[in-house]
Amino acid sequence: MSQSATRNNARRDFYERIGGLSMAPLWESLHQLVPPQPAPKYQAAHWDYDKVRPYLMESGSLITAKEAVRRVLILENPAMQGSACITPSLYAGLQLILPGEVAPSHRHTQSALRFIVEGEGAYTAVDGERTIMHEGDFVITPTWTWHDHGNESKQPMVWLDGLDIPLVAMFNAGFAENGESDEQAVTAPEGTSDAKYASGLLPVDWKPSRQTSPIFNYPYARTREALAGLAKAGAPDPCHGYKLRYVNPASGGAPIATMGTFMQLLPKGFTTAPYRCTDGTVFSVVEGSGESVIGDKIFRWKKRDHFVAPSWAKVEHRADDEAVLFSFSDRPVQEKLDLWREDRGGR
Amino acid sequence: MSQSATRNNARRDFYERIGGLSMAPLWESLHQLVPPQPAPKYQAAHWDYDKVRPYLMESGSLITAKEAVRRVLILENPAMQGSACITPSLYAGLQLILPGEVAPSHRHTQSALRFIVEGEGAYTAVDGERTIMHEGDFVITPTWTWHDHGNESKQPMVWLDGLDIPLVAMFNAGFAENGESDEQAVTAPEGTSDAKYASGLLPVDWKPSRQTSPIFNYPYARTREALAGLAKAGAPDPCHGYKLRYVNPASGGAPIATMGTFMQLLPKGFTTAPYRCTDGTVFSVVEGSGESVIGDKIFRWKKRDHFVAPSWAKVEHRADDEAVLFSFSDRPVQEKLDLWREDRGGR
Amino acid sequence: MSQSATRNNARRDFYERIGGLSMAPLWESLHQLVPPQPAPKYQAAHWDYDKVRPYLMESGSLITAKEAVRRVLILENPAMQGSACITPSLYAGLQLILPGEVAPSHRHTQSALRFIVEGEGAYTAVDGERTIMHEGDFVITPTWTWHDHGNESKQPMVWLDGLDIPLVAMFNAGFAENGESDEQAVTAPEGTSDAKYASGLLPVDWKPSRQTSPIFNYPYARTREALAGLAKAGAPDPCHGYKLRYVNPASGGAPIATMGTFMQLLPKGFTTAPYRCTDGTVFSVVEGSGESVIGDKIFRWKKRDHFVAPSWAKVEHRADDEAVLFSFSDRPVQEKLDLWREDRGGR
Amino acid sequence: MSQSATRNNARRDFYERIGGLSMAPLWESLHQLVPPQPAPKYQAAHWDYDKVRPYLMESGSLITAKEAVRRVLILENPAMQGSACITPSLYAGLQLILPGEVAPSHRHTQSALRFIVEGEGAYTAVDGERTIMHEGDFVITPTWTWHDHGNESKQPMVWLDGLDIPLVAMFNAGFAENGESDEQAVTAPEGTSDAKYASGLLPVDWKPSRQTSPIFNYPYARTREALAGLAKAGAPDPCHGYKLRYVNPASGGAPIATMGTFMQLLPKGFTTAPYRCTDGTVFSVVEGSGESVIGDKIFRWKKRDHFVAPSWAKVEHRADDEAVLFSFSDRPVQEKLDLWREDRGGR
Repeated sequence: MSQSATRNNARRDFYERIGGLSMAPLWESLHQLVPPQPAPKYQAAHWDYDKVRPYLMESGSLITAKEAVRRVLILENPAMQGSACITPSLYAGLQLILPGEVAPSHRHTQSALRFIVEGEGAYTAVDGERTIMHEGDFVITPTWTWHDHGNESKQPMVWLDGLDIPLVAMFNAGFAENGESDEQAVTAPEGTSDAKYASGLLPVDWKPSRQTSPIFNYPYARTREALAGLAKAGAPDPCHGYKLRYVNPASGGAPIATMGTFMQLLPKGFTTAPYRCTDGTVFSVVEGSGESVIGDKIFRWKKRDHFVAPSWAKVEHRADDEAVLFSFSDRPVQEKLDLWREDRGGR
Repeated sequence: MSQSATRNNARRDFYERIGGLSMAPLWESLHQLVPPQPAPKYQAAHWDYDKVRPYLMESGSLITAKEAVRRVLILENPAMQGSACITPSLYAGLQLILPGEVAPSHRHTQSALRFIVEGEGAYTAVDGERTIMHEGDFVITPTWTWHDHGNESKQPMVWLDGLDIPLVAMFNAGFAENGESDEQAVTAPEGTSDAKYASGLLPVDWKPSRQTSPIFNYPYARTREALAGLAKAGAPDPCHGYKLRYVNPASGGAPIATMGTFMQLLPKGFTTAPYRCTDGTVFSVVEGSGESVIGDKIFRWKKRDHFVAPSWAKVEHRADDEAVLFSFSDRPVQEKLDLWREDRGGR
Repeated sequence: MSQSATRNNARRDFYERIGGLSMAPLWESLHQLVPPQPAPKYQAAHWDYDKVRPYLMESGSLITAKEAVRRVLILENPAMQGSACITPSLYAGLQLILPGEVAPSHRHTQSALRFIVEGEGAYTAVDGERTIMHEGDFVITPTWTWHDHGNESKQPMVWLDGLDIPLVAMFNAGFAENGESDEQAVTAPEGTSDAKYASGLLPVDWKPSRQTSPIFNYPYARTREALAGLAKAGAPDPCHGYKLRYVNPASGGAPIATMGTFMQLLPKGFTTAPYRCTDGTVFSVVEGSGESVIGDKIFRWKKRDHFVAPSWAKVEHRADDEAVLFSFSDRPVQEKLDLWREDRGGR
Repeated sequence: MSQSATRNNARRDFYERIGGLSMAPLWESLHQLVPPQPAPKYQAAHWDYDKVRPYLMESGSLITAKEAVRRVLILENPAMQGSACITPSLYAGLQLILPGEVAPSHRHTQSALRFIVEGEGAYTAVDGERTIMHEGDFVITPTWTWHDHGNESKQPMVWLDGLDIPLVAMFNAGFAENGESDEQAVTAPEGTSDAKYASGLLPVDWKPSRQTSPIFNYPYARTREALAGLAKAGAPDPCHGYKLRYVNPASGGAPIATMGTFMQLLPKGFTTAPYRCTDGTVFSVVEGSGESVIGDKIFRWKKRDHFVAPSWAKVEHRADDEAVLFSFSDRPVQEKLDLWREDRGGR
């Protein structure tokens, strides 16, 4: 037996013996544990709404919102089957609520965002106040607040749910409770939060007790107007077009402590410069159509489609006509931990 | 000579001798330097717009805006004549700009707020962007930014100027420069700042470089709607009615690092509970009429009147009909220094 | 076939069809994804140094520090075999460096802590400055700084390595580089960082560029004295004895953005009240002996032993004689995300 | 009468009429209110300890510490006679306490610093804990905490008192109370605060309730060692020599919210490059001798002398032999308000 074979045998024998004590040699896995650059084990993927919608509607006949608690089809990363994750830190799903249905009241430490994909007239209630939702609205149900949804309109309503379920699971810090009744009592007229927090002022003695935004509906009408104003004011950013991030007006930080949310406008015919960043990102197409090159994949997308770009994958967007993209990621967490990086390729 | 007279003589002689070395005995002034509670040397005062306005208009014929640089009548605290102060830390004045006039471009480290009292259609330009001003708008010209004003409307325009001149003077930290031309070049269309910063979102990669708000006009239309929403949502605060503070959406702090600004609605017939706080406050009446008891004075006020309440004076407001009051003070500075106190009398 | 069997078949068929589109039904996994309270999949474990040490020394003959890059035996959670994790977010290992050896210079975005278990005289070099390490010292190698270790003493040296490898892996935000030479050049005399940052003062114009502490060695002598002072000053906390957290003097936050580090003294015979918290915690015994009840397990421990307590497990420590425990966890991350909770059982 | 004389008369008449309404024309004082650069109305000054000390000792026979409450000779700026100010925002004085005397317990919102000039063995008590003071120690009595001083040694003790009296007076935010007894009860052994807060760790669950440092004595022994370490580590800063700022370890900010405190070492023969900044600064010479050029004045100084440099005055220090200077100013306030500026002349 060669010297190196002897050495390798001795090592293998050693590994087995220390395995019994729940120990393992770092040197066999160091390179993989501390890689030279991100090598994600999940992949880019695309959900075509034309294909997704029929199943969503079929789910409406298979189970009621009440029985399901939340009738959602999870958008699961193809490379992480069975994980219920779209990226290693994030969950995404499409929720359907039919006319007359209620998704009953509960609360949990996981934070949730809702981005309205189709329909209007359903409400989300948070802490005793309801907000009617419209396409393109961005709604949050902050950590540990009671929330329920109901559809008093005559059409089905679909929204994207984004949650930090995998992140909270890693910390084993999840708590949840069900409400005593399906619908919480309404204690404040609609518009109260907007009046208090969304006009450039805040109640004089109000102090935030957590990082989540006191605004719980950021209506699309207002956001779309901001994008239009931005587009009139100057040239687009080469990597992003015109891109804004939603903020908590009480801090300037993200409305949700664990998830960043963004809205960007790509002018007609615009192609973004190749860009990568360490936050894997979920996109929802709000207006227009186009295509995105993500690593070695190309997706053609249109209104209501969804797609995901992994960490550090090179991303280029191309808009056929003027397009608007909503997106979310874990960027605020990475920033809080001094981990976030981007590569603008010199742009 | 008695023992105590001898002692006093010895002390007086001592004081004289140390005076030559620029020294003084603390024990003779300790009680006054470290008082048991605030004993302001300035007083409550009221400026009736009916009396003030004719002089303001007369000033328009005595000097041009250009010659004056800023044609302003200072509201000087009656107890601090010659100081140009309305409180020991704040300056206030009423500025007139006539149709066709320009108040030329300059910049200074002192921060300025403008609260529009009468007229509309004049503009303030900041950093290459203009905003048209209307009654009730709250406009800021942040520290060390170039700013100029011009009136392209057909009516005179009057606003309240609030500055931190005395505060900056105490620190001897004031710098100023005049612009090369009277009007700075317009480099961004009107509404740019609003689109970028005032819709619940911020430009994705924008980082604030100073504490002042990136929004430079907080329009009254939006503020008034917020007050109305607040009034529908619940009971008024006993000491304040419905009161909001303007905020910088990038931080949740005051739009100006050195001055807090507030807007409050008093329902018809409402009387506030006696209240005092350590920030001497300047009020501008936006709507309605009523009266305020401030310490041992009573002022009757109506739209466009101004009045000032000293630190720690007991204040009660009474509204005849629904009234709206704008106000400003140095509260954010006191809060940053752990000095601010209030006394709500148990309310 | 019964109605419910039919329904279940229809659902199963549906799940299969949507699986092809990378979708899954939330309602089948909701309760597990959003659990009522933490239900960790990892377990309490204990590493007896008497059993571990012989293997550690044997590893010294199987591989050199240089070949291994870092000669470390990973302390792997028995319930997460093959993961190289001690908790879902943390890595721990015991590193051996023999006299004359060098662990070559590299840098990575993962943050590392070193807690000295046995020996003294080896150094850690960070950014051109070396620090000699002694038992009980807490040393950090901040994110993205060049660091190497060398043993110029005559005895083997062992320390606990704590890293945020699993956390950074979840974000796919890890970057690493090897140095050009094994040992970086020394550019500052030993003690420079201590003089600059560890005496209650900071260099007048120094501004931190990241969250990690500028102090990179917190010597045990100083820490032990603090514990002794604390113990003289008052009664122990029922849940913790006398417990301090290491801090970054430039912020008051944790020395490492992603990991909290603690030192606690348990008086002779003291038993802590049952306590649980959401941060799974790794302990290293510095002085004394005793036992800990963690959930349904009991471990007897002594100097140099290590053990881990999972999230939300009930923990009680009992000290035979005066004992000192070092510990680390992901608590600062959970606090930054508003996720951290504790249950002191009313104490 | 010429046209301009007519105009001037009209204006003067106008000024008189508006004066009756407590108004004044801004345009007559604008340039002075908003100056192109700081033009302080106070001056550089120097207090030679050889001349000051005899008076200080004489004061000991004129009044007891108890009768005086605080037996202090105020260092009053020669240009601000009767103001009790050394700069427009700061107060300074030299306090004498004789063997056996007590300066009775009181508290106030004004913050105080003590810098020990001569003697040792007297104590300051804060919140039930005493600290024995030595030359060069920097001691704080945080805002609104009970504090008293006593001299149980056999020698007189002299320290520099620095307070924010003028600043707090401007805000009219001062409150004060006398204790029920002269000496507060001792509830914690000496060294408790040091153990809890000054070793690179903090009590695990302690949250600061105000900005002042929890450390109340920064001993000179530790500070001097830090300066020596700094001097060994590299070249001096051209403008400052080796200069550190005292910090609150819970925040990295100044130990006192309203006053910055600094310690700097000037190597033997070193001359600093001309430097100016907007914070008027009070210096106390701890070691060595030298001279300082401040604006158009030159002061020769030695151990225990004091001098003050106004805002924006050009300052150069020259050390005969190795010198150590303590200093304090309002820099943290100016920084909190985005007002602070310095001019390093390109160095």
